Amino acid sequence: MINVKDILAFLGNDVISIFGNNSYSEIRYLRAIGSADEFTLEWIHALSRDKQTIAENTFAKVVIADCDVHYSAKMISQKKTLIQVKNPKLTIAKLGNHFFMQRPGPGVHASVNIHPEAVIGTNAFIGPNTIIGKSKIGNDVTIHGNVSIYDNVEIGNKVIIHSGVVLGTDGFGYERDGDGTLIKFPQLGKVVISDSVEIGANTCIAKGALQDTIIGEGTKINNLCHIAHNVRIGKNVLITGQINISGSCLVDDEVWISPNATIRDHIHIGKGAHVGIGAVVTKNIPAGETWIGNPAKKYEKK
Amino acid sequence: MINVKDILAFLGNDVISIFGNNSYSEIRYLRAIGSADEFTLEWIHALSRDKQTIAENTFAKVVIADCDVHYSAKMISQKKTLIQVKNPKLTIAKLGNHFFMQRPGPGVHASVNIHPEAVIGTNAFIGPNTIIGKSKIGNDVTIHGNVSIYDNVEIGNKVIIHSGVVLGTDGFGYERDGDGTLIKFPQLGKVVISDSVEIGANTCIAKGALQDTIIGEGTKINNLCHIAHNVRIGKNVLITGQINISGSCLVDDEVWISPNATIRDHIHIGKGAHVGIGAVVTKNIPAGETWIGNPAKKYEKK
Amino acid sequence: MINVKDILAFLGNDVISIFGNNSYSEIRYLRAIGSADEFTLEWIHALSRDKQTIAENTFAKVVIADCDVHYSAKMISQKKTLIQVKNPKLTIAKLGNHFFMQRPGPGVHASVNIHPEAVIGTNAFIGPNTIIGKSKIGNDVTIHGNVSIYDNVEIGNKVIIHSGVVLGTDGFGYERDGDGTLIKFPQLGKVVISDSVEIGANTCIAKGALQDTIIGEGTKINNLCHIAHNVRIGKNVLITGQINISGSCLVDDEVWISPNATIRDHIHIGKGAHVGIGAVVTKNIPAGETWIGNPAKKYEKK
Repeated sequence: MINVKDILAFLGNDVISIFGNNSYSEIRYLRAIGSADEFTLEWIHALSRDKQTIAENTFAKVVIADCDVHYSAKMISQKKTLIQVKNPKLTIAKLGNHFFMQRPGPGVHASVNIHPEAVIGTNAFIGPNTIIGKSKIGNDVTIHGNVSIYDNVEIGNKVIIHSGVVLGTDGFGYERDGDGTLIKFPQLGKVVISDSVEIGANTCIAKGALQDTIIGEGTKINNLCHIAHNVRIGKNVLITGQINISGSCLVDDEVWISPNATIRDHIHIGKGAHVGIGAVVTKNIPAGETWIGNPAKKYEKK
Repeated sequence: MINVKDILAFLGNDVISIFGNNSYSEIRYLRAIGSADEFTLEWIHALSRDKQTIAENTFAKVVIADCDVHYSAKMISQKKTLIQVKNPKLTIAKLGNHFFMQRPGPGVHASVNIHPEAVIGTNAFIGPNTIIGKSKIGNDVTIHGNVSIYDNVEIGNKVIIHSGVVLGTDGFGYERDGDGTLIKFPQLGKVVISDSVEIGANTCIAKGALQDTIIGEGTKINNLCHIAHNVRIGKNVLITGQINISGSCLVDDEVWISPNATIRDHIHIGKGAHVGIGAVVTKNIPAGETWIGNPAKKYEKK
Repeated sequence: MINVKDILAFLGNDVISIFGNNSYSEIRYLRAIGSADEFTLEWIHALSRDKQTIAENTFAKVVIADCDVHYSAKMISQKKTLIQVKNPKLTIAKLGNHFFMQRPGPGVHASVNIHPEAVIGTNAFIGPNTIIGKSKIGNDVTIHGNVSIYDNVEIGNKVIIHSGVVLGTDGFGYERDGDGTLIKFPQLGKVVISDSVEIGANTCIAKGALQDTIIGEGTKINNLCHIAHNVRIGKNVLITGQINISGSCLVDDEVWISPNATIRDHIHIGKGAHVGIGAVVTKNIPAGETWIGNPAKKYEKK
């Protein structure tokens, strides 16, 4: 059980104001809005309608909200605690990670297959049947079961890799010979996964051909994505489900790519740009712009 | 070898009429139309042209067809058996399941990794290297090899799960902090797979964030699909290959989603609707309608 | 270390001319253009600008280029070796395969699970945790770890299969019964993979329903593709990432399908045709044509 005191200590300066009992100690759950009981830490989205009503009607004793919610007479009579913050959803994300979600392990399962020359840092969790080639893995990583890591993969610290991921396969480069036969172009580069990256289930990342494929710090990749050879992705990029990033693309920091978008090879996507759902990108996208459609075009708000 | 008597007993009232030898006992195969030998159970699609010709020219001794095919003098002289039904393809599907396809097992392979607190029902087949977390699995399930089931997954009876499936990964929810860092929103819900669901190879289903992700009874999901957190799918839905259903979508009973369609988050698709191949759905689809294109729009037959 | 003599012997008639030291013996690497040191085998793309400048400025001692590069006074003074060929990229692909890339194995890992009636040819490499059902596998195959091969799969010689691939799952064929229930149509065919095919990570290929699914000789398939039941693919076809080929399609020799394209069932794609990135193909494509868009239409160069 979690005490309001612990929450306040963890949030520090993120707390704008606290009203009511600052040592309620029976918090046990996070739940969907509208299903709280007295042991739930309630929160109210900044964009909710009727924020005050939610705060007054919840069965929860502790509520995290923005400053639009005031500590009303009703809340006082209910002996509720109100914690005001700027962005309640972000606050719940931080609290969720710290108080409610548990990293598995550490520990390397006996069935894991590790190349004798692989290097694995401290405090790793590696689940059953995962295969690790001649590669280098940092500290505090979480690698779930049934993952396949080929040779020549470098993984930083605090990386999370979900089941079924395949890292370091050959890039898809072929030259046609005179009789139509396809000859594989040499695939000799690395995959470099920077610190704090998360990679969703069954996603595949190819190694570079003669350079490296690089995923920048803090970038998050969802399930079933395909990232081809020589791609370089910046920091804190959001790559949602089933994205296809073709060879040699360059994706700058804080880009957001919506589900099932496809990026043609050698495309540059500028900082903070947004690629819309199902977009097929065949031209470079300048920083900050939103592109949608097939083929993708700049989206102008009307 | 299968006897016509057994077929008639199994089909019961689905049989409209039977002509010829009702105890031919040498049926061994189902084959593609046009490649039957005398040991094949022939069938004729209701939409075929020249149904009578197919019935008369097949080498098969037993033919399942609709009432457009009559028991002609030629078929009599060939000593063929004709079984008339309303929908021959549906009849063959039923016969195929009963007489020609075999469920593996039961049995749990020695290499399966099961959490000590997992609960597994009776009569399960579980193939090699499958991982089962702290989850609950019903009776008569078929789980092929190399499947990864995380904690907090509930699987009903008669469910079939193909190789490479990943169930119960974290949903893809992040909040951006002031410096651009992505903070994971808590992912604490379940995945609930109802009875008689089939899930194709390498498909991924995320658990709910603060609610559950739910797949309804009898729904069939093909390979390489991505079903995000909080999605709720009804009964007998057809989800074909590489579908992307984003967070919190609601898909009603008997919907049919064609290959590689993408559904934006929080979309509602009404009962019996059809989402076309490659459609990018950004608006709610009313019951019974067909939508196609990028972005998807209502399809009106011309 | 590799000697120019060995390169010349291997290339044979592909060499148009050789200038300078034909027995330089210190070649160790292939690297990205612009990052060569003296131990690198440099090459210059036929479409590069400033080919002569690259040849004169590289630190490499041995350069492979087309006949636009001449053996200049500067290259003579640098004691460089110049090997002229028609298509330098194709030449590097051939050299890369022969001198710089290494096939793993042979050897079957102890954790591989093989059906007692499976047949496996000579000189196979099979990585950890791979599952092989009652199937037939040729000679000189490379099957990486965590692959799932069901029953009724036939694999030719020199085939390469990457991690997470699933071959031989049931095709996605269902008939709706009167109450909406989905009844599986019998899936009794084979998957046939011809010689020299390569299949990328996490790709899924379904077996045929009453016929077979066939992949032709020399065809290359990238990651996360879905190839449905009864599909027949010709020789030397390029199938890039996340392609969806629906049931009963026929794809002729030397077709090139760009990333994330989707092909409707029963479509025929003629020899040498090109399906554009993200295209949604709902009509047959004649030989040699390029089709793009959703729905795909013929692309005419303007």
